[in-house]
Amino acid sequence: MSTITLGQYLFERLHQLKVDSVFGVPGDFNLRLLDDIDEVPGMRWIGNANELNAAYAADGYSRVKGLGALVTTFGVGELSALNGIAGAYAEHVGLIHIVGVPAVSSQQKQLLLHHTLGNGDFSVFYRMSKEISHASSFLKDAASGPSEIDRLLRDAYIYQKPVYLGLPANLVTAPVERSLLDTPIDLELQPNNQEVESDFIEDILKMIKDAKNPVILVDACATRHSVKLETKQLIEATKFPVFVTPMGKGAVDENNPRFGGVYVGSLSNPDVGQAVESADLVLSVGGLLSDFNTGSFSYSYKTKNIVEFHSDYCKIRSAVYPGLQMKFVLQKLLKLVGAAAKGYTPVPVPSVKLINTPAPQGTLLNQQWLWTKVSSFFREGDIVITETGTSAFGIVQSRFPKNTTGISQVLWGSIGYTGGSVLGAVLAAQEVDPTKRVILFIGDGSLQLTVQEISTMCKWGQTPYLFVLNNNGYTIERLIHGMNAEYNAIQPWNHLDLLKFFNAKKSESIRVSTTGEVDQLFADPAFNKNDKIRLIEVMLPMQDAPINLVRQAQLSEKTNSSA
Amino acid sequence: MSTITLGQYLFERLHQLKVDSVFGVPGDFNLRLLDDIDEVPGMRWIGNANELNAAYAADGYSRVKGLGALVTTFGVGELSALNGIAGAYAEHVGLIHIVGVPAVSSQQKQLLLHHTLGNGDFSVFYRMSKEISHASSFLKDAASGPSEIDRLLRDAYIYQKPVYLGLPANLVTAPVERSLLDTPIDLELQPNNQEVESDFIEDILKMIKDAKNPVILVDACATRHSVKLETKQLIEATKFPVFVTPMGKGAVDENNPRFGGVYVGSLSNPDVGQAVESADLVLSVGGLLSDFNTGSFSYSYKTKNIVEFHSDYCKIRSAVYPGLQMKFVLQKLLKLVGAAAKGYTPVPVPSVKLINTPAPQGTLLNQQWLWTKVSSFFREGDIVITETGTSAFGIVQSRFPKNTTGISQVLWGSIGYTGGSVLGAVLAAQEVDPTKRVILFIGDGSLQLTVQEISTMCKWGQTPYLFVLNNNGYTIERLIHGMNAEYNAIQPWNHLDLLKFFNAKKSESIRVSTTGEVDQLFADPAFNKNDKIRLIEVMLPMQDAPINLVRQAQLSEKTNSSA
Repeated sequence: MSTITLGQYLFERLHQLKVDSVFGVPGDFNLRLLDDIDEVPGMRWIGNANELNAAYAADGYSRVKGLGALVTTFGVGELSALNGIAGAYAEHVGLIHIVGVPAVSSQQKQLLLHHTLGNGDFSVFYRMSKEISHASSFLKDAASGPSEIDRLLRDAYIYQKPVYLGLPANLVTAPVERSLLDTPIDLELQPNNQEVESDFIEDILKMIKDAKNPVILVDACATRHSVKLETKQLIEATKFPVFVTPMGKGAVDENNPRFGGVYVGSLSNPDVGQAVESADLVLSVGGLLSDFNTGSFSYSYKTKNIVEFHSDYCKIRSAVYPGLQMKFVLQKLLKLVGAAAKGYTPVPVPSVKLINTPAPQGTLLNQQWLWTKVSSFFREGDIVITETGTSAFGIVQSRFPKNTTGISQVLWGSIGYTGGSVLGAVLAAQEVDPTKRVILFIGDGSLQLTVQEISTMCKWGQTPYLFVLNNNGYTIERLIHGMNAEYNAIQPWNHLDLLKFFNAKKSESIRVSTTGEVDQLFADPAFNKNDKIRLIEVMLPMQDAPINLVRQAQLSEKTNSSA
Repeated sequence: MSTITLGQYLFERLHQLKVDSVFGVPGDFNLRLLDDIDEVPGMRWIGNANELNAAYAADGYSRVKGLGALVTTFGVGELSALNGIAGAYAEHVGLIHIVGVPAVSSQQKQLLLHHTLGNGDFSVFYRMSKEISHASSFLKDAASGPSEIDRLLRDAYIYQKPVYLGLPANLVTAPVERSLLDTPIDLELQPNNQEVESDFIEDILKMIKDAKNPVILVDACATRHSVKLETKQLIEATKFPVFVTPMGKGAVDENNPRFGGVYVGSLSNPDVGQAVESADLVLSVGGLLSDFNTGSFSYSYKTKNIVEFHSDYCKIRSAVYPGLQMKFVLQKLLKLVGAAAKGYTPVPVPSVKLINTPAPQGTLLNQQWLWTKVSSFFREGDIVITETGTSAFGIVQSRFPKNTTGISQVLWGSIGYTGGSVLGAVLAAQEVDPTKRVILFIGDGSLQLTVQEISTMCKWGQTPYLFVLNNNGYTIERLIHGMNAEYNAIQPWNHLDLLKFFNAKKSESIRVSTTGEVDQLFADPAFNKNDKIRLIEVMLPMQDAPINLVRQAQLSEKTNSSA
C-alpha cells in the first residue's frame, strides 16, 4: 500500500482542482507543510509580503480560476488575513484558508507558546474564523484528515465561500493512502427538487409569454456560480435587453447587440434607468443587492414582476423557493424559453457612448475623460481590476471587449484589496493563458495599504499594468465627508521610484497628466504588449470623481447620519 | 447646561488620560467622528497607511505612555487590525479600539450595506473582537455612551488589555453634558483583601528571613502594570541579585550593581543560569512565562521556593492567592522587607561582558559582534525596539543605559509588529520628551510586512533610527525549518531608496558591511543626534544568528514535530 503525507494529500487535492499557486507567509507552525508543495508537480508556493495581501491574492486568483488557497500560521498569521477572508465570504469567492497550528500535544498541555494569547486557549482563533467561514475544521487526528479536506474543498468550490482548515504541525507528515486520490472530489450540485423546479419554471414561462417589455439583469453571482454560459444562451434565446450591475460587469458580452449598459438604480445613466424601470418583467440572475451595487437601494422597478435566480434559492416577486439552484433552473428553462418568448418583439437598447469631446493635447486629465477613454485600451481576454473608490465607480462608464474579466470588491469594499488581488489574478492568468493582460486601476490612497505586494509580482517576473490614479488622498472619503479634512490626506509618494525600489528586473514607469499623453500611450503598440511590469501614474484633480460616485457619496453620508 | 458631542466626549476622556495621538484609517462610518478630534486642543489624528499598522502603532504608543487608541471603520477596517489587538491582549498592552459602525437605523433595517457580509448580521465583527478584548461595548443609544466609554477606558488602563467600542455613525453627534468631564475616570485599583494580603506578606517575610541565596526575577508585567518603582525599591532594600527575562528587559536599571543579566532558562549565559537556578528563593515580579521568554519552558530552579507577584493574583510555590494585586503587596512589603533581609550577605552577581575580540576594520559583520557593539550606541532615555527574529534574541546580549525603554513582542511574536509600533513609540516619545531617541532593529523579511508605516513617520517629520538587518530572508524561520528553502527567501529591496520613495524631507540612508564602518558610525557625533530620519542597512550573513536563537529554534522544531 503506497502512502503519502497528509500535507501532500492536501496539495494533490488542490492540484486536482486546478489550484496551482498557493499564497501565504511562512511561519514556524506551517514550515514543514510548505515542504510538501514541492512534492506535487505543477504546484508553486508564491510567498507573499504579508498575510492580508495573501488573502487578497488568493481571492483574485479564485475569481479567475474558480478556487484559491492560502497558508498562514497560527494566531499572528491567520488573524492578519481575516479581512481578506471576510471579503471572500461577502462576495462569494471560493477559497481555503489553511492554518498551521501547534502540535496536538502542545495544545493538550495548554503550553504558553508564542503566537498564543498566553491563556492556554488554542481554539480562540478558530472560533473567530468560523464566523466568516462557510465550513471549518480544526483537525485533532490524522485519520479524519482526508475526508475533512475533501469536505472543505467541496464546500469552498460549490458554495463559492471561504473555508478554514486548522492543521496541527505534527499531523502534516502523517501517512495517508495514496489511492484515496483516485476518487475525485465530488463537485456536482445536488439535483433540485423536481416538482418545485417544474412549478417554478411553469410560472416564469407564463410570465415571459405575457411580457411585452422584459429585461434581463445580470449580477456578480452569475460569474461566481458559473452561469455565464446559461445567461448568454438566455439572451440569445429570448433577445431580451440585458443589463449588468456594477458587480456584474464582465458577466455578459458587452458587444452583444442586446447589451444595454450598467444599471445602478437612481445613479444609472437616464436611458438605462428608463429601460430597466419601465420593464414589465425583470429576470435577475445572480443578484447581490448591496448599497454601492444599487445606488443605495434605489432600484425602482415599476413592475412587480421580478424573477430572481440565485445559487441556493429562486424567487418570484415575494415567493421564495428555498434550495432551488439557478444553474439547473436556467438549463431547463433554456429548453423551453424560445417558444415562450417567440411573441416578443425586440425593442432598441441604450448604447454605451465612448466618445470624448475633442480637446487640445495639453488638456489636463479628469475622471470623466479617463473612464471614457480606457475602453480603447482594453482588448479581448483582458482582466480589468478596479479598486474601491473612483476606479470602481469610473469603470462602470467603460465598455469591456469580449471575454473580459472584471474584478472589483464592490460589496465588501476594503481599500487596498486590489493591490493584493492583482497578484493572484496575474498568476492565474499566466496559468490559463500567458498572453492575457492584467490591468489594475488603483488610487494613491488605496495603494498605500498593500503596496508591498507589487514586490511579489516583481519576484515572479509578472507583467501587469498598474495605473496609479494620483489625486492626492482618499477622494471617495472626501466626497462622503471632509472634503478638505486633514484626515483624508496622505503622505505623497514618488510613485515613479516604486518599481526600482522593489528591484523589478524589467519595468517601465510613466507619468501622464494630459489627454495627449494618454492618447499617445494607448496608441503605442509597444505599450500595448504586456512584456514588462508597468506603473503608470495618472495625475488627476483632488476633488474630481465620476458623477455616479459623487451621487453615491451623498446618499451614503445621508444614511450614516440618519437617526 | 453646556453640551458637547459624544464623539468629543470620547476624545476629551482620552486626552485626560494623556492619550494625545489617535491612530487609524478613515472610513465612511468613522469620518464624522474624526472631525471631533480637532475639537480637543492637544489631540492629533495620525492617519496610518493601513489598519494593522495602526494597531501596532497604538500598541507601541501605549508601551511608552500607558494607553493607546485607534479608530477603524466597520468590517473591513476593524478586521485588518485584529492581529495587532490580539498582540496587545497577549502582551498586556492597554488600548481602546474604536470602530465606526453603521447608523442604528441601518442596523435595525438589516440593510445590505457595503462593508457587511451581505447577510444582515451587524454584530458578527463585534463577536469576533470580543474574543480578544478584555471588555467591549456595541452602543445602541447615546444615553449610555459616557458611562460605557468610562468603563472601557478604565478597564483598558487598569488591566492593560485591549477594549472594543462599536460607535454607530449617527450617535457621534448626540449631545452629552460637558460637566460629566469634571469627574475624572476612577483609575484606582480596588484595595486587596487585607487579611489575605497580611497572610501572604507574613509568609514571604519568613521565606526572605530564611533565604541564604535569594534572587529577584523581573518580567514584562512589572513594566506593564507599573511596579518598576516598587521593584527598584525592592532591589535597594534587599540587595538581592536581580535578573530580567527577555520580555522584562528595560524594567530594571542594568547599571545597578546588583543587576546580573538576562535569564532565559537553558538558553541563558552559563553564569546567569547558575546564579538563578542555585537560588533558594526566587521573587518573580510580573512573570509571563512563554516559550521564547523561558527557553522553551526550560526554567529549572532547584529551589521550590518561588514567590510570584502578578497584577491580579500572587502565588507561593503552588498556593494561589486569587485577586491579590502585586502593586499593593509590594508597597506593603517594602515597609517590612529591610528588616527581614538584614541578615542577607550579598553575593557577587554575573556581569554583562560587552567587549568584542579586536578585529581588522574590514571584517564583515556578524550578529555576535553587532549585538555586543550596539550597547555603545545606546544612551540614557533611549527607546529600543527589536523585531521578532534575530533582533529580539540579539538584544538580550546588550546592556541598556538607565531609563531605557525596551519594546519587543516576544510572546505574540508577529513579524512586522515593530514596523508599526516604532511609529507609535516615536510619537509618544515626542510628547514625553522630544530629545528621546527611538531606535528600531528590524530584519529585511519583517520589514516587508509593514513597510508603509515608515511613510507615516516621514509625514510627521519623525526622526527615528531604522536599522534594517539585511540577511536575505526569514533567518529565524530558516533556523527552525528549511534553511535553504525557497519559501524562506524574499524579494530583495533597494533599502537605500526607501526614504526617498516615501518622500522623506530630511533623511539619511547608509549601508554598513564591516565592523570598521559600524565603529566609525557610532563614533560620529552627528550620527548620534536624532535630527533626521535615518535608515541604516546592516549587511549580515544569511545563516548567521545570535546563539540563543539558534538553540531556541532547535527546541521549537522539536515541539512542532512531537506527536
